Amino acid sequence: MTTPDRSNLKPISLWWRPQTPNPAKVVIILEELRLPYTGKFVELEDLKKAEFEAVNPNGRVPAIHDPNTNITLWESAAIISYLIATYDTTHTLTYTDAPNAFHLQQWAYFQASGQGPYFGQAAWFLLYHPEPLPSAKDRYVAETRRVVGVLDKWLGDRTREGNVWLVGNKMTYADLMFVTWNGAVGLFLKLAGREGEWDPEKEFPHFWKWQNAMMARSSFQKAMSLAKVEDVHN
Amino acid sequence: MTTPDRSNLKPISLWWRPQTPNPAKVVIILEELRLPYTGKFVELEDLKKAEFEAVNPNGRVPAIHDPNTNITLWESAAIISYLIATYDTTHTLTYTDAPNAFHLQQWAYFQASGQGPYFGQAAWFLLYHPEPLPSAKDRYVAETRRVVGVLDKWLGDRTREGNVWLVGNKMTYADLMFVTWNGAVGLFLKLAGREGEWDPEKEFPHFWKWQNAMMARSSFQKAMSLAKVEDVHN
Repeated sequence: MTTPDRSNLKPISLWWRPQTPNPAKVVIILEELRLPYTGKFVELEDLKKAEFEAVNPNGRVPAIHDPNTNITLWESAAIISYLIATYDTTHTLTYTDAPNAFHLQQWAYFQASGQGPYFGQAAWFLLYHPEPLPSAKDRYVAETRRVVGVLDKWLGDRTREGNVWLVGNKMTYADLMFVTWNGAVGLFLKLAGREGEWDPEKEFPHFWKWQNAMMARSSFQKAMSLAKVEDVHN
Repeated sequence: MTTPDRSNLKPISLWWRPQTPNPAKVVIILEELRLPYTGKFVELEDLKKAEFEAVNPNGRVPAIHDPNTNITLWESAAIISYLIATYDTTHTLTYTDAPNAFHLQQWAYFQASGQGPYFGQAAWFLLYHPEPLPSAKDRYVAETRRVVGVLDKWLGDRTREGNVWLVGNKMTYADLMFVTWNGAVGLFLKLAGREGEWDPEKEFPHFWKWQNAMMARSSFQKAMSLAKVEDVHN
């Protein structure tokens, strides 16, 4: 594929909804790469209708259409992988050498399969499930804490080697993929009256330092501010 | 990275356990690519011990060490992505052109984040959770059926275009990633006494045809036969 001309890009369409961590992951990468984009808000009841399912047969946001390459794509991590491969030509957020490039994929898949779905189940049983199921709530709160513990231990080991990021010595797309779901933990535990179970500064200090470094970036701030409005106008 | 000499490869070490779909996914790709490998069985109680956590800080199988490239890697989908990038030099199971290469990643992420974790939660609540939780069981059986329905509809649309695979007109690693968890559904529903809820030949015919085409391959047969022994000796 030819690299699109960065000086003359058409806006990338992003189907999304606010208050959901997965579309916000994509916003962060779009912002970090300074790409133009236009939000297309999808009502909850429209996710499973034919019009949107023609975009994403799985009926979920995010999805994108990039008019510069004519690709339509869904799954937040696959979208991020595409944006990095297509537009991060100076490799500001990635590595292209082995083993670093493969280790980035390893952490990206851990985020997509081990963090997102389990943090999401915690939020579901704590806040939305039609009946209270204490043992299901406890299962996913414990798994959330376990995953955060894995990240904290890894980052602690890395810090002792002089690095503070998951792979190599710079922040990459793999780090940034974790930030929105990490940021949701305190919120869903608080809404469930379980904020006493979440003191990351004390319990997971390396994790917390990493998370705060990413939350301080304007890309995260932008993604969170957009999460409060119904439509993205860039 | 230099491509290792295919005629003189050292066996790839695969940490694994039988009866789990994720290590079997990797076995299938190793078999399809005719790569030499040696199994390293990990006892359940050893997954969270320091020796194995030095390999995978997440304490899960599969993980690999490839002595030909000196990489250690975990997350089944990331391992598969590595094996394809490193050893599928004739592109028998992949595409390298856009948009196909990105669409393969999209389906791979759907498998890793939308199929595996949710089918796994269904198995957990149906068979292993310490107390019966009917509404949690129903949640994940419904999600399993929804995901199978998404695949069936997509494959049906593809069939009408003359294709029977997820992307392009050949079987790829993205198709093969789904086969082990697909194959587990009938088993866990039967063990839970809910086999009446699973008639894929009738309800999901395109899905079932696709699944059977993959189950008929020797790579799948080998992965399943290995699942019955404690150690892999290749």
